Amino acid sequence: MTEAPKTAQQMAEQREISISQFFEKNRHLLGYDNKIKALLTIVKEGVDNALDATEEARILPEIYVKVEELEKEKYKIIIKDNGPGILKKHIPNVFGKLLYGSKFHRLKQGRGQQGIGISGCVLYSQLTTGEPTIIHSSIGDGKTLKYTLKIDVKSNEPKILSEETTEDGDNKWHGVQITFIAEGLYREHKQSVLEFLKQVAIANPYAAIIFDSPNGRMEFKRSASTLPIEAKEIQPHLDGVEVGILSRMLHETKARTCASFFATEFSRIGKLTADSICKLAAVDPKISPRKITQEDVVKLSKATKEVKLTRPPTDCLSPLGNELIESGLKKELSPEWISALSRPPSVYRGWPFQIEVGIAYGGSITEPAVMRFANKVPLLYQQGDCAITKAAMAVDWKRYGVPGDKLPEGPVAIFIHMASVWVPFTSESKEAVSSYDEILREIKLALQDCARRLSLYLSSMRKAELIAEKKQTFEKYAHETAVAIEELTGVPAKKTKETIMKLVELKWGEIIAEEQAEDNSNGVNGSQKEEVDENGGEEE
Amino acid sequence: MTEAPKTAQQMAEQREISISQFFEKNRHLLGYDNKIKALLTIVKEGVDNALDATEEARILPEIYVKVEELEKEKYKIIIKDNGPGILKKHIPNVFGKLLYGSKFHRLKQGRGQQGIGISGCVLYSQLTTGEPTIIHSSIGDGKTLKYTLKIDVKSNEPKILSEETTEDGDNKWHGVQITFIAEGLYREHKQSVLEFLKQVAIANPYAAIIFDSPNGRMEFKRSASTLPIEAKEIQPHLDGVEVGILSRMLHETKARTCASFFATEFSRIGKLTADSICKLAAVDPKISPRKITQEDVVKLSKATKEVKLTRPPTDCLSPLGNELIESGLKKELSPEWISALSRPPSVYRGWPFQIEVGIAYGGSITEPAVMRFANKVPLLYQQGDCAITKAAMAVDWKRYGVPGDKLPEGPVAIFIHMASVWVPFTSESKEAVSSYDEILREIKLALQDCARRLSLYLSSMRKAELIAEKKQTFEKYAHETAVAIEELTGVPAKKTKETIMKLVELKWGEIIAEEQAEDNSNGVNGSQKEEVDENGGEEE
Repeated sequence: MTEAPKTAQQMAEQREISISQFFEKNRHLLGYDNKIKALLTIVKEGVDNALDATEEARILPEIYVKVEELEKEKYKIIIKDNGPGILKKHIPNVFGKLLYGSKFHRLKQGRGQQGIGISGCVLYSQLTTGEPTIIHSSIGDGKTLKYTLKIDVKSNEPKILSEETTEDGDNKWHGVQITFIAEGLYREHKQSVLEFLKQVAIANPYAAIIFDSPNGRMEFKRSASTLPIEAKEIQPHLDGVEVGILSRMLHETKARTCASFFATEFSRIGKLTADSICKLAAVDPKISPRKITQEDVVKLSKATKEVKLTRPPTDCLSPLGNELIESGLKKELSPEWISALSRPPSVYRGWPFQIEVGIAYGGSITEPAVMRFANKVPLLYQQGDCAITKAAMAVDWKRYGVPGDKLPEGPVAIFIHMASVWVPFTSESKEAVSSYDEILREIKLALQDCARRLSLYLSSMRKAELIAEKKQTFEKYAHETAVAIEELTGVPAKKTKETIMKLVELKWGEIIAEEQAEDNSNGVNGSQKEEVDENGGEEE
Repeated sequence: MTEAPKTAQQMAEQREISISQFFEKNRHLLGYDNKIKALLTIVKEGVDNALDATEEARILPEIYVKVEELEKEKYKIIIKDNGPGILKKHIPNVFGKLLYGSKFHRLKQGRGQQGIGISGCVLYSQLTTGEPTIIHSSIGDGKTLKYTLKIDVKSNEPKILSEETTEDGDNKWHGVQITFIAEGLYREHKQSVLEFLKQVAIANPYAAIIFDSPNGRMEFKRSASTLPIEAKEIQPHLDGVEVGILSRMLHETKARTCASFFATEFSRIGKLTADSICKLAAVDPKISPRKITQEDVVKLSKATKEVKLTRPPTDCLSPLGNELIESGLKKELSPEWISALSRPPSVYRGWPFQIEVGIAYGGSITEPAVMRFANKVPLLYQQGDCAITKAAMAVDWKRYGVPGDKLPEGPVAIFIHMASVWVPFTSESKEAVSSYDEILREIKLALQDCARRLSLYLSSMRKAELIAEKKQTFEKYAHETAVAIEELTGVPAKKTKETIMKLVELKWGEIIAEEQAEDNSNGVNGSQKEEVDENGGEEE
């Protein structure tokens, strides 16, 4: 080689990168790949936060969203809620600092988890238009705080441009209103702000949403006035705790002994289990957690995998429940048939989760749809990469009388909701769920169960159609037959016709009874009959 | 509602999350989805850094990789290079702090870009086994530094467990050696460490790699002793600079006037263009950059989109070139036919990039393969999501005589390399390239061009086979014919046979000439003839 090699001193300088700089350069990772999606991402982050805040404070959500075109590809976006507001000391960091929030460390179902969503919107706004974000907040004390701020990208710290407090006077409120000015493009197709809000309205039927779009006002009215059950915070479950985290927890715990550490810091570990973990690891259960060597931490970690652990509690979840799912689907889709069901809670890597599905058929539904939700938030992008889609494609829909190669065709809307303390998203932009086996299995089972119900409805529909056709044929010739009989026998045509019609009604009833009996004996599984009854109830 | 709403004070506490905590909880984002992939990710990050360091220092790389199973699903992974080493002051941060590195701010082609790859390995190792990472480094001064460290996850700062310096004695070296102990699973399938190293050897044929695997030693020998051309650092191009970044740059610049700011801070902006930007924005070109109002920054940003910009320079790229591509493919695949080509550099969002492709056919190749590379690094995961695969699937392979529905079938290996100052990866784990139109188009054009060459080779092969068959038939009956003629005419059979054979050779030559003429006149496009010549040259 002719070149002289370079030395370490001549190599480029090493520098720290702030998380804001990182996402500024990699903004597609946060959902800002293009202008249409950017607008959706901003509305999504704002609405997610609004729903989280109201739901957590146990307030029925009233949400206002406005998207206004200021000039070509430049929009003003306003999101306002009636939540509890944000304390003054937290406002700058919540909006002006990435990786800051209340939800990351907490084991409890919520829409947000990372603390980068809403500050990401501030970052994108200032990057594309140079404009700061304006935040109004009131905690209901008769005062409204107004902050105008940006993010100092190099330090990932809020840069407050102005800060003022006004008296609310007679118009007291509590909540948060955020105003972004950002580059975007407003469209009303399948992956749009409008479709997002419609699906939010389906999965959150207790929320009232007003949307002032560039094309006019749309209202999504509330169809339920009860919130889903409140999620409780839980302790971590040993199943998902790896040795590195165990080691850190041992150094931070207030517990005085190794055994009490396990019994107090983890979900559903009693004294007996704690002792048997110590025993298995050959570690003194009375030793102070801080005195445990790294070697023993590894042994303890292994021991946790050998003892039988009780499943984590599931009150950290806040599923929708069948009533809310059906209420949401009914009000937005007006289907002719509907059914919803929730699977019992399950666990992946120590995280509790629960799958809920709904199927709506016919009525105003004209084309097939698979609607994916994670913690009540609609997922509109990366459909192909998502465990929810994969599980839906694994169902043999034809078996249930639903045409379609991999996903159903025809007027079928499928609603699938994964509720979890920690949804394993495939990326920061939270568009798709990772394909854990447990998750795939639960979704598939739920869909199969619900599809079975649809199948019964569809086959009863088809039989009814067939019978109606036959009946029509009989009725069509009843008059002619009656006249002919009158000519032959003298019996009045009117009377004969009535008799024929009665016979037809009678026969029709028999056919239905017969075919129902057949259905029950040919059922796909033993629970078939029960499901028929359930369906019957729903259809009344 | 029966519940009392909660107030802002009662809501959960807000906290800052360190980038290490974030990735510890979201480790799948860095490529640690499962144990097999985790092992690959560690080797990948180590080898990427080793190649970057040696190549940047203009040293022919010699890389040693060892993967040793310590116990079930627990491995020791060693990666050693002969690079320039790392300065003492940088070692702790390079390995013990996420988002720290030399490549993020630099506009120059390199394998790493974010400063999270190698520290991510340290994080994953300590998380899964509790073990620290050991780093040996020497800058060639006769001393080796040894650091044993972890990452303090809460603060994202290095935690040094031990630090020592030893004299090298007679065994002077320079370079870095890293030892990880991590959870993993060693397999040798398509997405494995072995396949990765094989593809590294193809795309970096100037590197010598030794791999001590759990199944024994494998050597990938160097087939070239020249490094690709060195990439030069460039300035940012105005095309990719958004208003937020422009605003920051204006506040940080040393330029005294607005016009000189544009002329000195950006790539290929002369005084004339700088002046016309200011004029279009109605901003005084002589004003101090720090005095420009936010409003004027927006105007200037718009103006930059209206002036005609010269494309960025492309010496920031370090493409492989046809020779290295062919050398790599030949040494690892031993094909019967090969061709490589590089497209001229192009630009997406202000970032220069260049596409290079190679096609290898037959020989030792038994099954089809599409090998994807970004800045000389093999991409093994997320094939379906990657612009490279999408572009390859957009080629109508059948048109080029290659069977296959979307991707080629049969003994065809396709090599596709995207070289860029900034590869737009779809995630931090850098597994797939985002589908920018410019990138898709360049890849498709390159593949079509190369496929055309293959098509000519394949059709000449088919004709040669046909001719050989006919020739064989003639030869088969030459003896019998000659004997019959001797009986009839007395001409010695030997002589007649020789004549027949000569005629066959002559005829054969004519057929080839004729069919080549046909080829040239029926060519797919005008450049066909030229390509035939190129191919001819390559096949000699």
